[in-house]
Amino acid sequence: MSRIRTVGVLTSGGDAPGMNAAIRAVTRAGIYNGFNIKGIYRGWDGLINGEIRDFTTENVSGIIMMGGTILKTARSNEFMKPEGRKKAYENMQKEGIDALVVIGGNGSLTGARVFAEEYDVCCIGLPGTIDNDLYGTDSTIGYDTTMNTIMECVDRIRDTAQSHERIFFIEVMGRDAGFLAQNSAIASGAEAAIIPEDSTDVDQLARFMKRGIRKSKKSCIVIVSESKKCGALYYADRVKKEFPDYDVRVSILGHLQRGGRPTAHDRVLAARTGVGAIEAILQGQRNVMVGVRYNEVVYVPFNEAIRSDKPFDKKLIKVLDELSI
Amino acid sequence: MSRIRTVGVLTSGGDAPGMNAAIRAVTRAGIYNGFNIKGIYRGWDGLINGEIRDFTTENVSGIIMMGGTILKTARSNEFMKPEGRKKAYENMQKEGIDALVVIGGNGSLTGARVFAEEYDVCCIGLPGTIDNDLYGTDSTIGYDTTMNTIMECVDRIRDTAQSHERIFFIEVMGRDAGFLAQNSAIASGAEAAIIPEDSTDVDQLARFMKRGIRKSKKSCIVIVSESKKCGALYYADRVKKEFPDYDVRVSILGHLQRGGRPTAHDRVLAARTGVGAIEAILQGQRNVMVGVRYNEVVYVPFNEAIRSDKPFDKKLIKVLDELSI
Amino acid sequence: MSRIRTVGVLTSGGDAPGMNAAIRAVTRAGIYNGFNIKGIYRGWDGLINGEIRDFTTENVSGIIMMGGTILKTARSNEFMKPEGRKKAYENMQKEGIDALVVIGGNGSLTGARVFAEEYDVCCIGLPGTIDNDLYGTDSTIGYDTTMNTIMECVDRIRDTAQSHERIFFIEVMGRDAGFLAQNSAIASGAEAAIIPEDSTDVDQLARFMKRGIRKSKKSCIVIVSESKKCGALYYADRVKKEFPDYDVRVSILGHLQRGGRPTAHDRVLAARTGVGAIEAILQGQRNVMVGVRYNEVVYVPFNEAIRSDKPFDKKLIKVLDELSI
Amino acid sequence: MSRIRTVGVLTSGGDAPGMNAAIRAVTRAGIYNGFNIKGIYRGWDGLINGEIRDFTTENVSGIIMMGGTILKTARSNEFMKPEGRKKAYENMQKEGIDALVVIGGNGSLTGARVFAEEYDVCCIGLPGTIDNDLYGTDSTIGYDTTMNTIMECVDRIRDTAQSHERIFFIEVMGRDAGFLAQNSAIASGAEAAIIPEDSTDVDQLARFMKRGIRKSKKSCIVIVSESKKCGALYYADRVKKEFPDYDVRVSILGHLQRGGRPTAHDRVLAARTGVGAIEAILQGQRNVMVGVRYNEVVYVPFNEAIRSDKPFDKKLIKVLDELSI
Repeated sequence: MSRIRTVGVLTSGGDAPGMNAAIRAVTRAGIYNGFNIKGIYRGWDGLINGEIRDFTTENVSGIIMMGGTILKTARSNEFMKPEGRKKAYENMQKEGIDALVVIGGNGSLTGARVFAEEYDVCCIGLPGTIDNDLYGTDSTIGYDTTMNTIMECVDRIRDTAQSHERIFFIEVMGRDAGFLAQNSAIASGAEAAIIPEDSTDVDQLARFMKRGIRKSKKSCIVIVSESKKCGALYYADRVKKEFPDYDVRVSILGHLQRGGRPTAHDRVLAARTGVGAIEAILQGQRNVMVGVRYNEVVYVPFNEAIRSDKPFDKKLIKVLDELSI
Repeated sequence: MSRIRTVGVLTSGGDAPGMNAAIRAVTRAGIYNGFNIKGIYRGWDGLINGEIRDFTTENVSGIIMMGGTILKTARSNEFMKPEGRKKAYENMQKEGIDALVVIGGNGSLTGARVFAEEYDVCCIGLPGTIDNDLYGTDSTIGYDTTMNTIMECVDRIRDTAQSHERIFFIEVMGRDAGFLAQNSAIASGAEAAIIPEDSTDVDQLARFMKRGIRKSKKSCIVIVSESKKCGALYYADRVKKEFPDYDVRVSILGHLQRGGRPTAHDRVLAARTGVGAIEAILQGQRNVMVGVRYNEVVYVPFNEAIRSDKPFDKKLIKVLDELSI
Repeated sequence: MSRIRTVGVLTSGGDAPGMNAAIRAVTRAGIYNGFNIKGIYRGWDGLINGEIRDFTTENVSGIIMMGGTILKTARSNEFMKPEGRKKAYENMQKEGIDALVVIGGNGSLTGARVFAEEYDVCCIGLPGTIDNDLYGTDSTIGYDTTMNTIMECVDRIRDTAQSHERIFFIEVMGRDAGFLAQNSAIASGAEAAIIPEDSTDVDQLARFMKRGIRKSKKSCIVIVSESKKCGALYYADRVKKEFPDYDVRVSILGHLQRGGRPTAHDRVLAARTGVGAIEAILQGQRNVMVGVRYNEVVYVPFNEAIRSDKPFDKKLIKVLDELSI
Repeated sequence: MSRIRTVGVLTSGGDAPGMNAAIRAVTRAGIYNGFNIKGIYRGWDGLINGEIRDFTTENVSGIIMMGGTILKTARSNEFMKPEGRKKAYENMQKEGIDALVVIGGNGSLTGARVFAEEYDVCCIGLPGTIDNDLYGTDSTIGYDTTMNTIMECVDRIRDTAQSHERIFFIEVMGRDAGFLAQNSAIASGAEAAIIPEDSTDVDQLARFMKRGIRKSKKSCIVIVSESKKCGALYYADRVKKEFPDYDVRVSILGHLQRGGRPTAHDRVLAARTGVGAIEAILQGQRNVMVGVRYNEVVYVPFNEAIRSDKPFDKKLIKVLDELSI
């Protein structure tokens, strides 16, 4: 591993709060340990197109609290094709980049795994996604911030819901995972959550809502995980049909969930995993994702990190159920 | 005016942050000055249906920082009919309410004016609306909070817009007034605002956007005032057609704009106008809205307050134009 | 354990954000599972003095987002004496309270342990403290919120530090534990942290500061864990003496660190441990603290939870050291 | 005035949130209108020492939401001496700076007035101070943000005050003006405020506190305007002596009051006055401060702006008095 002199860093896929803190950590820990650092812009596309710059500690000064990513990000179609990855590899060699740190979610780390295998390249992944759907790390960079953003939005909507005594269906992100929906429902004191991991029929929903409405509050909030088939609009329509007396509204939180200043949790996670990525390179580790588990930095092989079955704790359904009486 | 012993307070129309601070101020200043205070629930409907309770200082304890309204609110169809107002008046007499303080927007104060004239009742209005569309007061209770809420949402979306280099059309509230859209565009450093007070064609918009995109940022944010005909979706579609290369997204902020803890500005405005409402009653004023103008508490006759032409400072269009280069 | 019909809940010691969410969770989960719930006011003192009320779901409605504790809290001198605990036990019997849920920190759970042993009473503890110094749970209720509060304060102070190119010593809470200081230093990008777990001499500090000042920023922030002997004022004085040219300032964050709306993390932790407390009672558990470890609800015997050596991860010192270059 | 080709901009005195938004507005509006813009670093000292750089729109990109000032700031002793001002003038000529925009408070604009008279230079002032003590403008850039920062801190401290039933004396900034103390007391629902504009003796204070304590809350918050002689510590000591039973605490908010992201109000004020400063130069105005009064941009001669008697509305004392019953 003593051959590694230059480390490239890129962000890929959907942006997540804390990515900048992670870029800062990788850059500073890298320089501290004697590496040259190169910033690669616009994700895999930037590696393919050669959008690469030398990074000093100055480049990452004052970014720890910024949302988004100063390296920009993209979902690359080129990189899904062998020719795209070939160009990427050639640019790595041209720029003298010996190892890559890839900050992104499931899709981005899948790309890293394919690339690392194809060209025998050292790739280290950092879990940068609001969806929390990577296996082997207690949480992902961005998840905690997005949880708080959603919670604050629901706190605001509740003010209106209670004042007007309305039913609100609030749609939140999460891709195919219900972490954001279920936990933000618990955190915001919502009456119910509709998540991919648990089938919800309208009868069941009606039962929850009636229980909520029976209470003095007379308003009700249901968090719905985004879904192509049946999002918040779908459930709102169904409920309106069956209970025409209710004043039912929909709010789709949308893109604002991705932004904002990262929370302390996400900044510390970014710092620890960023330092951990450089340590992994020093140790000769390859093709692993750095996570934090049981409050320890851990290295998870890509295959394991991206497997689709990150376990969802079913007990959280019981928690919401008992607390929304 | 020495006949007035009991003052009723109600909130009506759309809820606005700071309404609770206003209820608190009316209640406490009223009790301080020797009045009995009665809280009327669910706006005019509550007066019609007799949902009325005695209020002490305890009832308004700890509510100064809460969004929404503890008195609930509604848009009353009954009160628009003479029979509804008749019932309302009878209930006032039954409850011994001598004067009403009505916290609400344009529609609610219009109702107060009609009622006051019809039954020769003392009605004092407080400007409680996020839309800032009441004449005679520098701002309305809730407007400043909503401005900050929108600005924070745009700050978040900008993180994503810049990271992905996208064009965003963000739709904000404001009824028929562009105050929220224009000022939140200035506050958030948006590239353009589309408001009712100024006609915007797509050519003009394209010019702004190109100017924004020419800059290093390559992303662009346009704030659009809500409108039945041509909201954010309308403009996004038009732009997508003419510039198929742009990655155009839409975000409709929706109901979360109404909620949240009131800002210092709105809490102070609520305190001053609430105390001013009781002072107005002591002075024998009738059928006026209490506002703050030129940093002084003022009394504005209902007719004047609700006239539709609250002036929009066209210079703000120039300000945004110069700053978005 | 089927004998347990009535559960009392109290908060004790320093208040922590999320205590209300925990009270809500215990109350609702208790009622859901068929228990009577009694709220005990002002901590152990309230049990001694009989300040006890029946709690319904209404009592805990709308409190999930409130800082502080609606049950009030206190540090009880009476309860440290045998006579005090005797009165407490007699009141429990008089009120028919079969089990206690105690929400508090190290001192409060130590009291619970002594009481439980002395009178063979079922006591379940919840980790409610901003200090994070309880063993057996990944974090305590309030710690995450306080971390974010400190981080936001440091973010603000950094604006001023950079604008005026000053050195700031910022003192934060933490009792005898450096979790808050070390992690908030990492989260806020501070140049150094002075914590009880690690000895810092002024030479070492000067080295860090010079490194920070060498950078373009020319300002420097040091987080100091509160300490009777040598807090922020002590270090600032020492540094001023050795480096008379520096513009050195001190900020003691103080009491505001305890308050504020709880974060999503603390609300979910309060919900899970609150539900877990009731489950513990149903299972016949006694004299354990409910924590969350490895993302699972766990039961930790009091003896273990309150032992003084909650491990501090020394690697965090390295993380801050590498990132503050 | 057609002679003016190059405009220098500097920030001076204590930093205030919104200064960056003002720098951005001056720079962009200046460039829009055909001027060259030069950024002067570290206030008047930077003009004396020649720390001056050309500014493009890029230099002010992404700073609208940042606290502090990217131009740094200082209180200059050199500039108070004739030799210092001579050097400053010579540097202006050397750099070809025809007009200065000075963003600062009372002291900074006093300096600008002296300099403008001495060398017949065009100086335009922007009211950049958290203290709100400039005459002729409804508010100053930074005041609204600091008001909200204080209010949020008091909201947090109240959580603790209520939970422990304590008396808190909270000291806030404001130089010799009570605007921040009085209005933040109203906004946060404090029991009393001690301000320079109104003499408070301990008897009076005791009366307020007893009134507060009589209420169910049993806690009490007093906001104290900073003062060399008798700040929060002084009053706390006096009260402790007279009422030894009270649990009295002090919190000095300190430097964190200056920082933070500017509110919408301050960003819009910075935008309008920044654009107004360039317009003033175009109109041939000289030696005026740009303010916003009655919701209109106005130009106030320096002499008038810095006079010491910005009127304090005594009715605000009555407002707090009635609402803290």
